[in-house]
Amino acid sequence: MSKLYISYNQIHESIRDAVERYNINSDFKADLMVTITGGGLVPSRILRTFLDKRENRNVPIQAIGLSLYEEIELAQANGESGENIQVVKTQWLNPDEISLLGRRILLVDEVDDTRQTLAFAVKELLKEIEAEEVRKGLQPGESNTQLGVFVLHNKLKPKKRDLPDEIMNNYFACVEMPDQWLVYPWDAVDIQEHTKKASI
Amino acid sequence: MSKLYISYNQIHESIRDAVERYNINSDFKADLMVTITGGGLVPSRILRTFLDKRENRNVPIQAIGLSLYEEIELAQANGESGENIQVVKTQWLNPDEISLLGRRILLVDEVDDTRQTLAFAVKELLKEIEAEEVRKGLQPGESNTQLGVFVLHNKLKPKKRDLPDEIMNNYFACVEMPDQWLVYPWDAVDIQEHTKKASI
Repeated sequence: MSKLYISYNQIHESIRDAVERYNINSDFKADLMVTITGGGLVPSRILRTFLDKRENRNVPIQAIGLSLYEEIELAQANGESGENIQVVKTQWLNPDEISLLGRRILLVDEVDDTRQTLAFAVKELLKEIEAEEVRKGLQPGESNTQLGVFVLHNKLKPKKRDLPDEIMNNYFACVEMPDQWLVYPWDAVDIQEHTKKASI
Repeated sequence: MSKLYISYNQIHESIRDAVERYNINSDFKADLMVTITGGGLVPSRILRTFLDKRENRNVPIQAIGLSLYEEIELAQANGESGENIQVVKTQWLNPDEISLLGRRILLVDEVDDTRQTLAFAVKELLKEIEAEEVRKGLQPGESNTQLGVFVLHNKLKPKKRDLPDEIMNNYFACVEMPDQWLVYPWDAVDIQEHTKKASI
């Protein structure tokens, strides 16, 4: 599979373009980001720059960590399904620190490959929202919390998991692309060389 | 105050150089990063690329969030002390998810300005380590947990807070610099323009 090298500046610009193209600030109006540690860290920080502030404050970022996430990506890169790998939460949201209810939440990651990681994270976030609704005496869905997904790249390929329709209504991919091997700049050992390859 | 623009590639290279210069992989041997959300997100993800893997796995990253962190930085940018602003933890570590004991932890942030944020984070992390030691029936310090600090820039100016000596023994700044206004690439609206200014 051919490798596609992407530079930092290309990523930065594609995030800016996506926010504009999807009218995220006027339509989805995110007021909280949940970033998946590892892949989501750089994209979420750049995205923050382009999301409208709320009451003069940047949209906050909460991080979640999923172990075996890496192993899934690795297995897939090797042509294995990675389907039987169990995902474990290595960092999760603490309801005492952050309330999700009524928020407009963007889940951020770098790539939507087989959709397994995103599907797991979405399922767990929806459970978390419902649990908080129950704790606060609300019916499921009553808090009108919105959840969307923001990724740098969506690979156009058969997905191993689906996302619920209401999530796909707020699904934002900076770039849709064929199934290619992506090389992100943060993984580069020689960033000069990487940037040259990205400009071809 | 004059502005210093820094490009993504400059940051990427300065992290690689710092890991080598400080012999972090042979001396400190970090096996866990704790990144301060906002500033630390991009640096920690890049740093992961240059830290030796442990048992074939990347050094994990846990995120912590400090509210009013932004306000302190803003107040300082405006020449105010920001000293009376109270720091609140918006995301913290969960001992059920991650044990700190015996780890070699690098706390990661973008800039060490007045050292207030770092001092707060270090104090809270040391408390967390001691609390875990107590819970596990150990004496304070018995777990031999190591804590160090990694920042992109250390501004050479009077600091409002100090870090304990044992932390300063493992204090790694990619660049030490006079008190200038730093403009990081992730804050750029026009990244092409920003990169041009960074190359001057």
